[in-house]
Amino acid sequence: MRIILCGFGVVGQSLVKLFDSRAEDLYAKYGLKPRVVAVFDSKGSAVDKSGLDFDKLVNTKKKFGTVKNYANVKNKMTGVEILKNIEADVLIETTASNYKDAEPGMTHITTAMKKGMHVISVNKGPLALAFPSLMELAIYNQVILKFSGTVGGGTPILDYAKNSLRGERITSFDGILNGTTNYILSNMTTGLTFEDALKDAKEKGYVEADESLDLDGLDAAAKLVILANWIMGIKVTMPDIDCTGIRKVTTEDIKRAAKKNCAVKLIASCNDKLVVGPKEIPKDDPLCVNGTLNAIAFTSEHSGTQTIIGRGAGGIETASSILRDLLDIREEISRA
Amino acid sequence: MRIILCGFGVVGQSLVKLFDSRAEDLYAKYGLKPRVVAVFDSKGSAVDKSGLDFDKLVNTKKKFGTVKNYANVKNKMTGVEILKNIEADVLIETTASNYKDAEPGMTHITTAMKKGMHVISVNKGPLALAFPSLMELAIYNQVILKFSGTVGGGTPILDYAKNSLRGERITSFDGILNGTTNYILSNMTTGLTFEDALKDAKEKGYVEADESLDLDGLDAAAKLVILANWIMGIKVTMPDIDCTGIRKVTTEDIKRAAKKNCAVKLIASCNDKLVVGPKEIPKDDPLCVNGTLNAIAFTSEHSGTQTIIGRGAGGIETASSILRDLLDIREEISRA
Repeated sequence: MRIILCGFGVVGQSLVKLFDSRAEDLYAKYGLKPRVVAVFDSKGSAVDKSGLDFDKLVNTKKKFGTVKNYANVKNKMTGVEILKNIEADVLIETTASNYKDAEPGMTHITTAMKKGMHVISVNKGPLALAFPSLMELAIYNQVILKFSGTVGGGTPILDYAKNSLRGERITSFDGILNGTTNYILSNMTTGLTFEDALKDAKEKGYVEADESLDLDGLDAAAKLVILANWIMGIKVTMPDIDCTGIRKVTTEDIKRAAKKNCAVKLIASCNDKLVVGPKEIPKDDPLCVNGTLNAIAFTSEHSGTQTIIGRGAGGIETASSILRDLLDIREEISRA
Repeated sequence: MRIILCGFGVVGQSLVKLFDSRAEDLYAKYGLKPRVVAVFDSKGSAVDKSGLDFDKLVNTKKKFGTVKNYANVKNKMTGVEILKNIEADVLIETTASNYKDAEPGMTHITTAMKKGMHVISVNKGPLALAFPSLMELAIYNQVILKFSGTVGGGTPILDYAKNSLRGERITSFDGILNGTTNYILSNMTTGLTFEDALKDAKEKGYVEADESLDLDGLDAAAKLVILANWIMGIKVTMPDIDCTGIRKVTTEDIKRAAKKNCAVKLIASCNDKLVVGPKEIPKDDPLCVNGTLNAIAFTSEHSGTQTIIGRGAGGIETASSILRDLLDIREEISRA
């Protein structure tokens, strides 16, 4: 399977390491032989139609901060030029999420789909701003668009709701979808102020470069958009979400909740309305998880409420979700 | 799809009600038209090759305590005779689990498979005592054997581990797989003795007719056998499980655990060994759920630990798992 990988940060590097370490197993068990024919990051690209060397890619990135020094041959193609000129089966889009115009991910994804490539995106931006139209574009071009890693990281929340619960009707759901704010709110229960808890989270490397994505609920809202579209079939985008972050949560709010045996959590919920905001949750509710954990509770017609809890993010977790998407695409293609 | 239903207790009745209430939706959405051609319980049977009436079945059972009065025509066929003589596509086996010889379920299942019928079993007995050989028998006869309802009731634990986590390697798991003992242990944290907590659970109807199945850990052990075979590919049966129940758990044990911010739970675990027994679990571990809830935590190679929590049993929950199995069988057949 020929792959173009765009973005080569933690996730991209974890992915090629995973390809490398599991090469034999993936081929023996699933017949999958991932061949990365091009990688590009913000500074340049590496191209080899017979497949780039995974070790060399990682070492080049480590040494030069970009993959463009992979070969001596100077490759001057931009990302979009690569997508237009290099033949591949799948684009894996891992550039950073941005909720203003979703670029450069949006252009990568639409260019690839128009060329007939399947797409795996762990970039939430394009999906959050244009889920319904991206799905239409995929159908129109008869390609598969996958995005398991956008919600729950390595925890297959989207797949669970869509496949494991088929035959069921999910009527509503509530989730803690952002690990950073959950870490901050969990820490505030020990008496830390919001500012101190934020400082600690930053020191641990949990906070996005643009802290607003976490603190103002944008990351959670983007995930809510994806869940609502994919699981409930509600055609919405970011501006449809009623979104409040955690900046105004005080130690007093947390103490008041604790007296009722509750905790304050940033909850993304899909019921009559789509809302992200701080909410009091009973401590003995399975949804009430602490630290950087994510959790989501689906309420279904016949099987009651089912909660899934797992790590939300991390390079290797997200890489494992990409691998899952790749196996799905392979299976779907071979069946067609 | 022609179905033979054996056992017509809470689960069987919930299932035909589900077929009835969702008839239109099942046909429109999945092309599934379930036709129950025979039902038998311990006292007799009802047969109609053109499909039994769901309402009439439930009313007959309610009035006479058996389905044998469904029609005036006296039907004298035994369950096994029905399985041998009536043409059907799927057997749904819902008789009570028994871990001595697994009868009558074992005979029902093997007879049906030898006749080329697919089987859905929510009866744990046959699987607990003979999982590896039943799987072989299914393969030999080229039929599908499904059993989603045996673990987790309506919560699709087996499907999640097998399908949503494909591409991943599950390295171990721990679960609270029996709601009754969890209810008793949860109640003992309020200071109730084991005897009083058991009495309360019995009054609520949570305890099996043979209380040993719950209290001595047999139900949890049977589920562990099924999980270990299906998810980990370990060929084991009940006698391989090191199994201890909760009869010896005292209020002191619970208090001692509480001092360490832990709770005592009946944990079924698959690591180096397969063990069922009471264990102290930190209260802030997502696995540590209360009441009749079930929970299972899968540890995977790349995605960390993922916990699923849901109601363990109940007629409608189990019926919904049977429906899911039926949709799976339908899809697999149509693909072949």
